[in-house]
Amino acid sequence: MMGKKVIITGVPGVGKTTVVNKALKTLKEMGVEYTSINFGSFMFDVARSDDIVQDRDQMRTLDRGVQKRLQQRAGQAIAQVTGNVLIDTHASVKTPKGYLAGLPEWVLREIMPDIIVLVETDNDQILMRRLTDETRSRDKEGYNSIAEHQQFNRSIAAAYAMMTGCTIRIVTNPDFLLERSSAELVEVLR
Amino acid sequence: MMGKKVIITGVPGVGKTTVVNKALKTLKEMGVEYTSINFGSFMFDVARSDDIVQDRDQMRTLDRGVQKRLQQRAGQAIAQVTGNVLIDTHASVKTPKGYLAGLPEWVLREIMPDIIVLVETDNDQILMRRLTDETRSRDKEGYNSIAEHQQFNRSIAAAYAMMTGCTIRIVTNPDFLLERSSAELVEVLR
Amino acid sequence: MMGKKVIITGVPGVGKTTVVNKALKTLKEMGVEYTSINFGSFMFDVARSDDIVQDRDQMRTLDRGVQKRLQQRAGQAIAQVTGNVLIDTHASVKTPKGYLAGLPEWVLREIMPDIIVLVETDNDQILMRRLTDETRSRDKEGYNSIAEHQQFNRSIAAAYAMMTGCTIRIVTNPDFLLERSSAELVEVLR
Repeated sequence: MMGKKVIITGVPGVGKTTVVNKALKTLKEMGVEYTSINFGSFMFDVARSDDIVQDRDQMRTLDRGVQKRLQQRAGQAIAQVTGNVLIDTHASVKTPKGYLAGLPEWVLREIMPDIIVLVETDNDQILMRRLTDETRSRDKEGYNSIAEHQQFNRSIAAAYAMMTGCTIRIVTNPDFLLERSSAELVEVLR
Repeated sequence: MMGKKVIITGVPGVGKTTVVNKALKTLKEMGVEYTSINFGSFMFDVARSDDIVQDRDQMRTLDRGVQKRLQQRAGQAIAQVTGNVLIDTHASVKTPKGYLAGLPEWVLREIMPDIIVLVETDNDQILMRRLTDETRSRDKEGYNSIAEHQQFNRSIAAAYAMMTGCTIRIVTNPDFLLERSSAELVEVLR
Repeated sequence: MMGKKVIITGVPGVGKTTVVNKALKTLKEMGVEYTSINFGSFMFDVARSDDIVQDRDQMRTLDRGVQKRLQQRAGQAIAQVTGNVLIDTHASVKTPKGYLAGLPEWVLREIMPDIIVLVETDNDQILMRRLTDETRSRDKEGYNSIAEHQQFNRSIAAAYAMMTGCTIRIVTNPDFLLERSSAELVEVLR
């Protein structure tokens, strides 16, 4: 039997990893298993096993056509995984040339997710967290910029919903109240 | 001659039915006829005539693949209807697993609508109407939640416009001033 | 070698033409050349050379199927242009029947742009500019209406990003500070 394919997204600093880990732990206790896949790492593994790249930095410099084929192959491979799968990626990535779709049409058509989760929090919370997080070097962005990115993610998620028929679930991580947001995520995933 | 295919949408409590009925009455007086189709009922009729379901409750429990084929068949049948057609459905449906596209790509490609109308009103008006409407049991939702849903509908409507080349017309139903919003709709439909 | 395909959009009155001209001048001084194409004019040239229309007014009255083929042919021709191309069009056009996609799916699939730029400014600035611009007869629109249009453009741009894998770059033209916004555009185009 095919399991559920759930894609989980959130802007940097939203607390996605913490919420996901907590939710997966709770689900495991309930007897619900998920295979966790990071889309970027997965694509890198495909590229390395195909001898297209040797190290991760080379991933950014790939020709657009090569990158597209890699994305598609990664999507196909993920579609083959049996059981429930939780795919960690971005709804969109902020680059110097603008917002880039995390899930372009050719990836979506392969994965055909059941649910795409947007983990969101107050723009202000993200700002504070990014400013105080010493462990990771994150881009410094202002309040409006984060709000714009979260809004863009909602818009592109709507396009993803049209293309695949998946549901778009917004999970709010307010004031980083971990218990509440991970409980919400458990409800979506179980 | 092929008529116009117009899809009309609005979140629960927006007053869509009232606006539509008033507009259709005015149009009839002007000599403009529309066949009214409710997409959900139409799909149920297809499912029942194919012996896939016996009653409406079973529609919710269908396998995703079966549902997709049903949606597509309903879309094909609607595309065959001659003359002007007004299709009543939702831009997106709010479910426990998140927002679900009312018009996924495989339905849009069959219907290829000319116009999609979003009937909107103040979030606060919807809230008040839902709280006071005793005749229908509607989900109780807060102000922010309704605003989020209306915003999501605008986003997904933009994706529909890209896919089909239809226009997206926002008709505002302010303070339930029926005359004004139905007059706006008449302008769109005639 | 194929150059970059960049599409530049903005609501009427945003100051797009001025920003673009300034940016192209700077780029030329840097040795970066772009062929400028206006999508509407380009489509008209295709239609005239095919004897479909004689003058520009006829473009608005074309049958939907004819218009679709013309758009697609124009997209194909633009895809053939070598070197860097800057395509001037609208993310969406406001019509009496609602917002119309400037770049429907069948055009996007031909052009497959690298970047779509949204030139934006404060809604209030646009309003002031439209009210004071005597040289062009622009539609009179209120503040909310311009805000709604700019928001719709962001949403539909997200759908474009999903379909093509292009980036969506929002370039702000604040208080018509030409230097700053054209410098931002130079960064995107060079």
